[in-house]
Amino acid sequence: MSAEDVITEWFARQRKLSEEDFPIGLGDDMAEVRCGKDGSVLVTTDMLLDGVHFDLKQATLRQVGYKAMAVSLSDCAAMATEPVAAVAAVALPKGFGEKELKQLHGGIVLAGDRFGCGLVGGDITRWAGKERLAIAVAMLSRCAGGEPIRRSGAIAGDCICVTGRLGGSRLGRHLEFEPRVKEALGISQLVSVHSMIDISDGLSSDLNRICKQSRVGAVIKAGQIPISDAAEKGKDPLSAALNDGEDFELLFTLSQQDCRKLLEKWQGPTPITCIGEVTDGEKMQIRTADGRISDLKPSGYEHL
Amino acid sequence: MSAEDVITEWFARQRKLSEEDFPIGLGDDMAEVRCGKDGSVLVTTDMLLDGVHFDLKQATLRQVGYKAMAVSLSDCAAMATEPVAAVAAVALPKGFGEKELKQLHGGIVLAGDRFGCGLVGGDITRWAGKERLAIAVAMLSRCAGGEPIRRSGAIAGDCICVTGRLGGSRLGRHLEFEPRVKEALGISQLVSVHSMIDISDGLSSDLNRICKQSRVGAVIKAGQIPISDAAEKGKDPLSAALNDGEDFELLFTLSQQDCRKLLEKWQGPTPITCIGEVTDGEKMQIRTADGRISDLKPSGYEHL
Repeated sequence: MSAEDVITEWFARQRKLSEEDFPIGLGDDMAEVRCGKDGSVLVTTDMLLDGVHFDLKQATLRQVGYKAMAVSLSDCAAMATEPVAAVAAVALPKGFGEKELKQLHGGIVLAGDRFGCGLVGGDITRWAGKERLAIAVAMLSRCAGGEPIRRSGAIAGDCICVTGRLGGSRLGRHLEFEPRVKEALGISQLVSVHSMIDISDGLSSDLNRICKQSRVGAVIKAGQIPISDAAEKGKDPLSAALNDGEDFELLFTLSQQDCRKLLEKWQGPTPITCIGEVTDGEKMQIRTADGRISDLKPSGYEHL
Repeated sequence: MSAEDVITEWFARQRKLSEEDFPIGLGDDMAEVRCGKDGSVLVTTDMLLDGVHFDLKQATLRQVGYKAMAVSLSDCAAMATEPVAAVAAVALPKGFGEKELKQLHGGIVLAGDRFGCGLVGGDITRWAGKERLAIAVAMLSRCAGGEPIRRSGAIAGDCICVTGRLGGSRLGRHLEFEPRVKEALGISQLVSVHSMIDISDGLSSDLNRICKQSRVGAVIKAGQIPISDAAEKGKDPLSAALNDGEDFELLFTLSQQDCRKLLEKWQGPTPITCIGEVTDGEKMQIRTADGRISDLKPSGYEHL
């Protein structure tokens, strides 16, 4: 487990949340909070930092605003929920003012508008020293018919699927990726998805999260992983697709039967690929083209 | 208006939010988002920065975690709503790890536990360079019987009241203040509160927000402003009480009749003081002990 997962588990053990008020607590892509008699909302938050998640020497503020929303929209997708509203808090470097805020705002509402997610609040702060831009978005979503899809529902025998193509996102795509909100809703309407996550830290790390939370293992076929053009140009395309992170594609599992149905009926422009199978046990393995099987380690992005 | 209020108004004009989905949008202490058939949640966010809102040379991480939650709890109080759930995103300085996260967490849950607000999610990031700690909390609350109390409901003739005592918070109280959640709920059960805000940037600035949004003026009696011991020891106690900010006390307006009723029936340990009256027009004025009236300028904390 990553250090972030370890500490998140520790946090979860410190305070048991009431399952009635919080059907989904710490440790999934979003938490679920009951409201009203029959309603609930889901909530997530993401913090992006200059020099870590983007670099203002290369990225525009509009791109930063867009990405700040898009990573949270991707969390909404990972639960197959509909984005509703967002709040954004920014820590501005010295010298930033109205002009820069308007550029950030342009990117925020560009992303929000695409998925019907309104910007309803925020907080503007400014560093006293030489610190760089930080932006934190918190987003609310709601169920789209069915229950939110969790990380913990994978069953041995399930097919493992991904949307899109993986690897090399940090070479550019990470600033303008399309959160897979429509894909998630479309897939979950067609078939019964057992578990889902968005690939933020890398296929190997995020598949490991599904395995750990579902208490299952997985075997991935290296030759079937869809690799992005950007990753194909690099030294080790397979490793890039497994570990680069920031793909913000969906990784999900479903029965073999539903997988066949999905691949047959799916008409969206975003490709869906079956890349392996959920297994008994808790081991992750990868089968290379020559038939050799080796252990797959979670080697994606480390937050801590 | 403060630069932050000007840009917030500009943001609000760019995208009109549907009043059905968002009964309260940008520009109040919290936004209100509909969910389910009969429900709604309110949402707010606050970002705290090392060197601006606290200083790790003096404050403990536990105090920082506490304050990060307490400022959002104070927003819940400002709308007379019940805190429900929070998510926290942190940007850690280099060298910070599990130990520091546990200390922050200790303060976060200390504040949350007091008001029944669960920590349901978060994001952990770390700076690549020499940047300092940033922590952003987003909080959800729900209505406690009545409607949320807005900034825009003040009526000429209303009494203007505050809880507690003002000024000098930055000398220490800002790290351990008690958000006025119980007071807000207690007051709104006893009487009909027309408008409310929490004093975060300073009495003069936050009263100005009520005046602007309610399209009214105000006259404050200087001699009646409750001044904190910390401010009394300073060079200009009245100016401290008017402009220091970070008091996180409630500032609210209600009819003369309800004000008398409230002052008579209020049994809470937190003092409530009538400090002036809402007037026609849009001017803020202050009457000093010698009877002189002068204009009161919003001179509290400037975010930008």
